[in-house]
Amino acid sequence: MAEQLTKEEILDAAEQVLRRFGPEKTSVVDVARALNISHGTIYRHYPSKASLREAVAERWLHSIISPLKDVFQKDCTSSERLHEWVKTLIHIKHSLVKEDPELFTMYTTLAEESVEVIGAHIQELVGQIIPIIQEGIANHEFKTANAEETAKGIFMATARFHHPAHAKEWASPTIEEEFDLVWKLILSGILK
Amino acid sequence: MAEQLTKEEILDAAEQVLRRFGPEKTSVVDVARALNISHGTIYRHYPSKASLREAVAERWLHSIISPLKDVFQKDCTSSERLHEWVKTLIHIKHSLVKEDPELFTMYTTLAEESVEVIGAHIQELVGQIIPIIQEGIANHEFKTANAEETAKGIFMATARFHHPAHAKEWASPTIEEEFDLVWKLILSGILK
Repeated sequence: MAEQLTKEEILDAAEQVLRRFGPEKTSVVDVARALNISHGTIYRHYPSKASLREAVAERWLHSIISPLKDVFQKDCTSSERLHEWVKTLIHIKHSLVKEDPELFTMYTTLAEESVEVIGAHIQELVGQIIPIIQEGIANHEFKTANAEETAKGIFMATARFHHPAHAKEWASPTIEEEFDLVWKLILSGILK
Repeated sequence: MAEQLTKEEILDAAEQVLRRFGPEKTSVVDVARALNISHGTIYRHYPSKASLREAVAERWLHSIISPLKDVFQKDCTSSERLHEWVKTLIHIKHSLVKEDPELFTMYTTLAEESVEVIGAHIQELVGQIIPIIQEGIANHEFKTANAEETAKGIFMATARFHHPAHAKEWASPTIEEEFDLVWKLILSGILK
């Protein structure tokens, strides 16, 4: 029975235990107990507590950004698509904080423990901006530029609105207005 | 003797006590003891512990950004001045973290306790960017735009590099390169 456990099932259990006890108090033994298996079985899939936490953070980061894919289906200009993509990313983050600030803090804390997990997350996001820039260059909407550099620049320039370190500021009544000012500046920098 | 104490002397003492004991353990009585006066004398100048902490944070924020004034003396183009101003702000923040991360955290924690102190600090900084934008518009270097909105946009778009919430990321080997990408985007948005 224990042998048939998938990685997904272990992560589901780890997530539940982490939510219940918090990252400080959660051990691999707790997760094993929740699954009614020996902790050795978990170690076969995840060689350390750190790698289990990393995998939980990775799966969470990957799942929260899945709504971004819809932006690529829309029939619109490249600057509209870019705006929609960034606004969707911001909306996802702000909603998660609003719904359950403690849970958001827990997951971001787990993620921040691993430079690799954060690096891969940023790369995945920037990797979604690049084709939008390329599309805008191809249809003569955007100035010709290095699409990858522009994508990175846009991601970094909007950090205040999607980076979890700013979560406390997202409740500010002027946050939308501030984003619009940054967006105006970015658009002015890329539009032909 | 106690009656002749200036606000500055009280803040000097408060700063020393805060550095020694940390914000959690510092009381107004501790500050009074360090000055060899009654805590009533401090309350005459600062009606609460919170207002004393606010005043310490305010003075610190004001002092750290004083080197920015030199940027206005230089004989250079407006985009060079803008770049120099932002780079100087970033250099100030990064140096403070490098020199004494705990002290930096202490002061920023004090500052973050007061929305007014932070608001005034941001306003002071944005207020320094505005004349640089106006100068650039006047000498036809920058596109005509709302100088205040552009200044705010530039300040927000560079948050990743000067906002204390990102202090941990400033040690990254790619931080300079990331700034250059954001800067390129901003310049492209304002240059004629």
